[in-house]
Amino acid sequence: MGPHPAVAAIRLAVRRVLHDLLTEHRAPGAHPRASTHETPPPLVLVACSGGADSMALASALAFEAPKLGVRAGGVTIDHGLQPGSDLRAAEVVLRLRELGLDPVDSVTVSVGRAGGPEAAARDARYAALDTTAEHHGAAAVLLGHTRDDQAETVLLGLARGSGIRSLSGMAAVSGADGRYRRPFLELDRQTARKACMVQSLPVWDDPHNADPSYTRSRLRHEGLPALEKALGKGVVEALARTARLSRDDADALDTWATQAEATVRDADGHLECARLYALPPAVRRRVLRRAAIAAGAPAGSLFARHIEEVDRLITGWRGQRAINLPGKVVARRQGGRLVIRQG
Amino acid sequence: MGPHPAVAAIRLAVRRVLHDLLTEHRAPGAHPRASTHETPPPLVLVACSGGADSMALASALAFEAPKLGVRAGGVTIDHGLQPGSDLRAAEVVLRLRELGLDPVDSVTVSVGRAGGPEAAARDARYAALDTTAEHHGAAAVLLGHTRDDQAETVLLGLARGSGIRSLSGMAAVSGADGRYRRPFLELDRQTARKACMVQSLPVWDDPHNADPSYTRSRLRHEGLPALEKALGKGVVEALARTARLSRDDADALDTWATQAEATVRDADGHLECARLYALPPAVRRRVLRRAAIAAGAPAGSLFARHIEEVDRLITGWRGQRAINLPGKVVARRQGGRLVIRQG
Repeated sequence: MGPHPAVAAIRLAVRRVLHDLLTEHRAPGAHPRASTHETPPPLVLVACSGGADSMALASALAFEAPKLGVRAGGVTIDHGLQPGSDLRAAEVVLRLRELGLDPVDSVTVSVGRAGGPEAAARDARYAALDTTAEHHGAAAVLLGHTRDDQAETVLLGLARGSGIRSLSGMAAVSGADGRYRRPFLELDRQTARKACMVQSLPVWDDPHNADPSYTRSRLRHEGLPALEKALGKGVVEALARTARLSRDDADALDTWATQAEATVRDADGHLECARLYALPPAVRRRVLRRAAIAAGAPAGSLFARHIEEVDRLITGWRGQRAINLPGKVVARRQGGRLVIRQG
Repeated sequence: MGPHPAVAAIRLAVRRVLHDLLTEHRAPGAHPRASTHETPPPLVLVACSGGADSMALASALAFEAPKLGVRAGGVTIDHGLQPGSDLRAAEVVLRLRELGLDPVDSVTVSVGRAGGPEAAARDARYAALDTTAEHHGAAAVLLGHTRDDQAETVLLGLARGSGIRSLSGMAAVSGADGRYRRPFLELDRQTARKACMVQSLPVWDDPHNADPSYTRSRLRHEGLPALEKALGKGVVEALARTARLSRDDADALDTWATQAEATVRDADGHLECARLYALPPAVRRRVLRRAAIAAGAPAGSLFARHIEEVDRLITGWRGQRAINLPGKVVARRQGGRLVIRQG
């Protein structure tokens, strides 16, 4: 008798990612067989909070890695935001070791305030994961984000209303050299929970996940269920598919904008309004955005409405004044040129 | 003292659209002044259900049209779906005449079943509006869709999960020769209601709008409010902006796919796999979709998962069988060619 379907599903998801990693790992060497014999087996870490998603991920990694000649380790981050978080981290370390992972690290971070509590915790967490991965020379860090997390991320992006890049959610592969991998991005949260249950893995429920002062938590417990009630159960899958399609679309348009940018500059590197005008609006706005960022505007403060205003210097020219952009960047039309610069 | 801000807002929105229409109306003639004197003034119809949005629209059209030398008329559609709908239609006709609109038509349609009750009613409605516009030689038909309707449409598209075209909502200008105009697409529903109230315009509340058996109604009364509670009041505006940005992005990618299609066919018109492979995924999938539709697959039944499967004949070729698509269309790889045809 095979494993429970939920356990089979989490293992298959991890096996696929390990296969990808091994293919990439062997590719650089001239002779695949030689390199696997001579170089040490790659190490893959799982980032684990002790919650159901990442505990399921850890269990699947512990099961699949040895069969593929991969070393499996783990890391848990103590954000120090709740009393007793150090004890919990120690407990997660124990559980990961019980699964057979080695090495297993617990890293304490100090969370700042920049960008709000969720963003600050995330920044601190990824910085610590980067450091740990580099310290151990890990080939990859697996993250337990599920399709439900992806759906929430798409809705958070939708609320910004800043275009399809913000609808593209989390990537299956991200970070420096594709360090971060998300094997569960097509798997639902319920499957991960079920896999923990049937494997008798104790899981920890982060009280933050139920705290209505967090946007994501409100979305998870109220927004998304109401949307499912109105639109049907397929909403989470539809949001995840929207993320994949939007990511490819955004990538293609970025490629186009990069190519177009070279063609709209004159010999002195200035943007020519007539050539900008001839571009499709979606491409032109991306060229303008790139130009504003190149001139010093911080990407995070540059909103769709800023770019729309600069765009009107091209498409609706009636002698309007210079446009002030974040980072003291100013866009103005001079003769047939668009000049975007700081100060 | 000027009009109430809500009334000023609806009038401004209509004035802008009438300006656009007059500019387009005069453009074809050689001499703008001569043509306005010689041709009869253009007629603009408002499509009015008697609800707040379209009554506000009718009142603004009645106020602005004469000042711009435009004739203003109206049309109401009796869908015959509720007892007494004929009496209501007659009442709407009276109210539009009281506003000074002329001509005013009431058109009874018979609603089929194709595509579900909402789609069938919509198809019947637009067919009747087309006929009425052609009968009177109207330059445009104004529709009362608001920013809130747009937000709902984006969420309905999101639930399909079929990509950014379905996120692009309703266009400000659509239909044959840009017949349909939506002046209120950037205006919220509350403003339209307020404008009716301060102008003492009686409005009719369509019971369908509150009927939870309609997806849109559930979205309006439960889904969207819950999303606003989780994500903040800016959600409707963000969704409307997403629609605008997605529409431009989808248009640009369609343009690219049209150009790319010509470059990936060999001398016999067959799709070459190697050239398809070299395209960005977002462009390649659009080329494949166009090819499937050209071969006879009905666009409405062709989903993202179909195209993804065909795409794997290019990107993940391992000798897989032919792919069956809707409309008895079959896609198979033969040698280095992708053959998509019916039967």
